[in-house]
Amino acid sequence: MTKLKIAAAQIGGIQKDESREAVVARMLALMDEAHAQGVQFIAYPEMTLTTFFPRFYVEDRAEFDHWFETEMPNAATAPLFARAKAHGMGFTFGYCELTPEGLHYNTAILVSPEGEIRLTYRKTHLPGHAEYEPERSHQHLEKRYFLPGDTGFNVTKMQGVNMGLAICNDRRWPETWRVLGLQSVQLVAIGYNTPSQNNLSKDEGPARRIYHHELSMCAGAYQNSTWAIAVAKCGTEDGNHMIGGSVIVDPDGYVVARATGEGDELIVAEADFDRCAFGASTVFDFAAHRRIEHYGRITAQTGASQPE
Amino acid sequence: MTKLKIAAAQIGGIQKDESREAVVARMLALMDEAHAQGVQFIAYPEMTLTTFFPRFYVEDRAEFDHWFETEMPNAATAPLFARAKAHGMGFTFGYCELTPEGLHYNTAILVSPEGEIRLTYRKTHLPGHAEYEPERSHQHLEKRYFLPGDTGFNVTKMQGVNMGLAICNDRRWPETWRVLGLQSVQLVAIGYNTPSQNNLSKDEGPARRIYHHELSMCAGAYQNSTWAIAVAKCGTEDGNHMIGGSVIVDPDGYVVARATGEGDELIVAEADFDRCAFGASTVFDFAAHRRIEHYGRITAQTGASQPE
Repeated sequence: MTKLKIAAAQIGGIQKDESREAVVARMLALMDEAHAQGVQFIAYPEMTLTTFFPRFYVEDRAEFDHWFETEMPNAATAPLFARAKAHGMGFTFGYCELTPEGLHYNTAILVSPEGEIRLTYRKTHLPGHAEYEPERSHQHLEKRYFLPGDTGFNVTKMQGVNMGLAICNDRRWPETWRVLGLQSVQLVAIGYNTPSQNNLSKDEGPARRIYHHELSMCAGAYQNSTWAIAVAKCGTEDGNHMIGGSVIVDPDGYVVARATGEGDELIVAEADFDRCAFGASTVFDFAAHRRIEHYGRITAQTGASQPE
Repeated sequence: MTKLKIAAAQIGGIQKDESREAVVARMLALMDEAHAQGVQFIAYPEMTLTTFFPRFYVEDRAEFDHWFETEMPNAATAPLFARAKAHGMGFTFGYCELTPEGLHYNTAILVSPEGEIRLTYRKTHLPGHAEYEPERSHQHLEKRYFLPGDTGFNVTKMQGVNMGLAICNDRRWPETWRVLGLQSVQLVAIGYNTPSQNNLSKDEGPARRIYHHELSMCAGAYQNSTWAIAVAKCGTEDGNHMIGGSVIVDPDGYVVARATGEGDELIVAEADFDRCAFGASTVFDFAAHRRIEHYGRITAQTGASQPE
């Protein structure tokens, strides 16, 4: 029987001038709180260490290299690795990665209780746009500052559980969940930074954004018989508001824990991973029910075609 | 601007000894009621013409051939085609199809206001099992009486709208929705017969079944920017209870109409198909955001593997 106490460590807004060290101190406080509650695995948001800078435009991308990490762990994050090891806790967090080859990714890592990086995931579905677009209420320039991830969606067994990662917008794409599900994933951890307003629609404010967020999380978990954590960086950053709503979802697609505020906040659930087996062996027994001969378009075509 | 008034015609339980003619009379009553309300397209459930016989086991499958239609339209259903044509109404309904080659399918057709069959869809994701299983609270022998569909998921333009079909359990599979979405579908019509109890879990009664049903419908519609109709055959059939909960869902993933009872009932919505464009050109602009190089497992493997 595999059970783990799991947590989402929601992080409130991080302003432009906040240091990595100050952020890591906040992360450590939540980690200690989690440890006191017996948590064995903790998830932090997308781009935990910095403000969500893709809302700002710079012509010369290199000017923003200071938002990126060139090694991991590094001086600022080493205390996080050390504390997790001392607590015997697995963890995941997101940051901006600049590789030795000069490539920029929106990245998350999965770290074992022994302090080993077990999975590096680079965000696949980058939302937004690459050039300044004046018609938007705010910019969302992820396609400017990052390359689409080259890792794909991988699953590794850690702490006795099949774990996978995704980042923010990935959670809206059923392909994300299914590729993980086809590797028998039992826990998907997803950090996000979601602006409270759709920058192309004044009708889509925080209530709709939360609805779509939970809809995507619950459907993904249910349809792949997996536990899932979605953890927000949220509240007001540099005058821009982002939704909170961090959740832990069970393999039946139900929210079992939900953040109530928009600041630093821990939510916890006791996850019984044996519960993944029921869906995976009945209604979502893929081997028994999937019909890949009719799915060809999913991998053969990128964009939508018109009916013949 | 393309708008249609669309309806789901939910049908209450049909007992074993009810004739096709009696059922068609009930369908006509709902069609006339819809016409009086200005409805231009109406959807009926899966297997509308008969009781849901896969709950019964027979050793010799041929004994159940009387539940199948060998031609469409036929004497019993001709009045439906004639009335729809008189009303200038498009429609869809499900039935059990026995082909000239002796093949059995769980089928739905899409019929134009001119009475032409524009799409024949044969159910892809057959739930349940093929042999009698005594541990189940009731049998669900779809895999015994039907072949998996050979049509795949197709979209056709009818009444100015890109329309596609799926049947019952198909709605739980994101592959269904995505293959339709990749053909720019704007309206998906799905009939269903869903037992109120999971036959392998006493904990999963009607509330959970309704939750999973709506979750699947709303996620599918949202993630593919399409209108969707789910229409039930429901209530008590031969002493077995099935969930109602017919819904019409908008391209933003919200339920805009919902049946309140478990008998014959019409629900109606004014569908503005121009609303499909917003999602399809922004967050779900497939050409801009999908990364098929990372989706390979979806079409390359049927069952789930274990992580390496």
